[in-house]
Amino acid sequence: MSAPADYTAAMHRPPVKHCRNCGNVVIIRLPDDGDTRKRAVCPACRTVHYDNPLNVVGTIPALDDRVLLCKRNIEPRLGKWTLPAGFMELHETVAEGAARETLEEAGAQFELGDFFSLVNIARVGQVHLFYRARLLSDQFAPGYETQEARLFTEAQVPWDEIAFRTVGETLKRYFDDHRRGQFSVHVFDIN
Amino acid sequence: MSAPADYTAAMHRPPVKHCRNCGNVVIIRLPDDGDTRKRAVCPACRTVHYDNPLNVVGTIPALDDRVLLCKRNIEPRLGKWTLPAGFMELHETVAEGAARETLEEAGAQFELGDFFSLVNIARVGQVHLFYRARLLSDQFAPGYETQEARLFTEAQVPWDEIAFRTVGETLKRYFDDHRRGQFSVHVFDIN
Repeated sequence: MSAPADYTAAMHRPPVKHCRNCGNVVIIRLPDDGDTRKRAVCPACRTVHYDNPLNVVGTIPALDDRVLLCKRNIEPRLGKWTLPAGFMELHETVAEGAARETLEEAGAQFELGDFFSLVNIARVGQVHLFYRARLLSDQFAPGYETQEARLFTEAQVPWDEIAFRTVGETLKRYFDDHRRGQFSVHVFDIN
Repeated sequence: MSAPADYTAAMHRPPVKHCRNCGNVVIIRLPDDGDTRKRAVCPACRTVHYDNPLNVVGTIPALDDRVLLCKRNIEPRLGKWTLPAGFMELHETVAEGAARETLEEAGAQFELGDFFSLVNIARVGQVHLFYRARLLSDQFAPGYETQEARLFTEAQVPWDEIAFRTVGETLKRYFDDHRRGQFSVHVFDIN
């Protein structure tokens, strides 16, 4: 799946009104196990429902001094440019998820590189994780979520048309490191 | 919450049998939006239910050449030693969650340091994320989940009594870096 990166946790996961196990109406209260946060608890079967942050995983696919961006074909931010990224799935690593999204959204041929950035967006309960990727070709085969996949130098990037702040801030740090000729891991927060 | 780090996603989140929104029995099928994975879909209100990986966040609290470990007072691995860590909550950053767990489980006074490790455990749908932390005192006030909080040099660490492989592998890398006098970010997988 490659759901939009700025979906709020609430949109992606509507509030728990009924128990996932037995269907009864849940009660929002402190569980009995010493937990200090209120959860949706089932009064019938006692299942406790947790909502936890979601990881969004993607890549910065690069060919020499150019970076691949995808023009979004879906809401939100339809028509804006983004890096290939989407929600991490069960039973894959961050690297596997990032590679999967790059294939799904851009149809790119690439070699996965090093881990590059961890971006917290606590407001929406998300962590965005980007890897670098080295493109092996300038030919792409975008999926249905992407109108167009295109390479941009730093000067060519449509900075005012970037879909998400996590992507813009990750790109800035990528080009800074590229200019310095040395890449490091970047950890930062977006409000 | 500081639920045990090796709970499987299934234990933490039993299978979705009923719709969280309306309580109807769900059907496991491909959603209608082009998604390529089967999900629990509600035939009545059409809510699609996603299960995604969980982040476990924690610290490596250190005082000079010693590291703080906590003896578990809860199952699983009751009586085994671990680093302070637990499930990341909504609306906190990785750093905030790691600090919270360190306070809850060890009652330690510390200053949070740099991001240290990202460990994938794809089999159980988890990503473990550790920060370094500098202890400001050797006095601790462990919570109910911890029998004892104690400082260990590398030679003193009870390597055969470590609760989780993510913790043992993170500790090894920490002591290696400490010996070299230079810390880097470590990304690795555990099967």
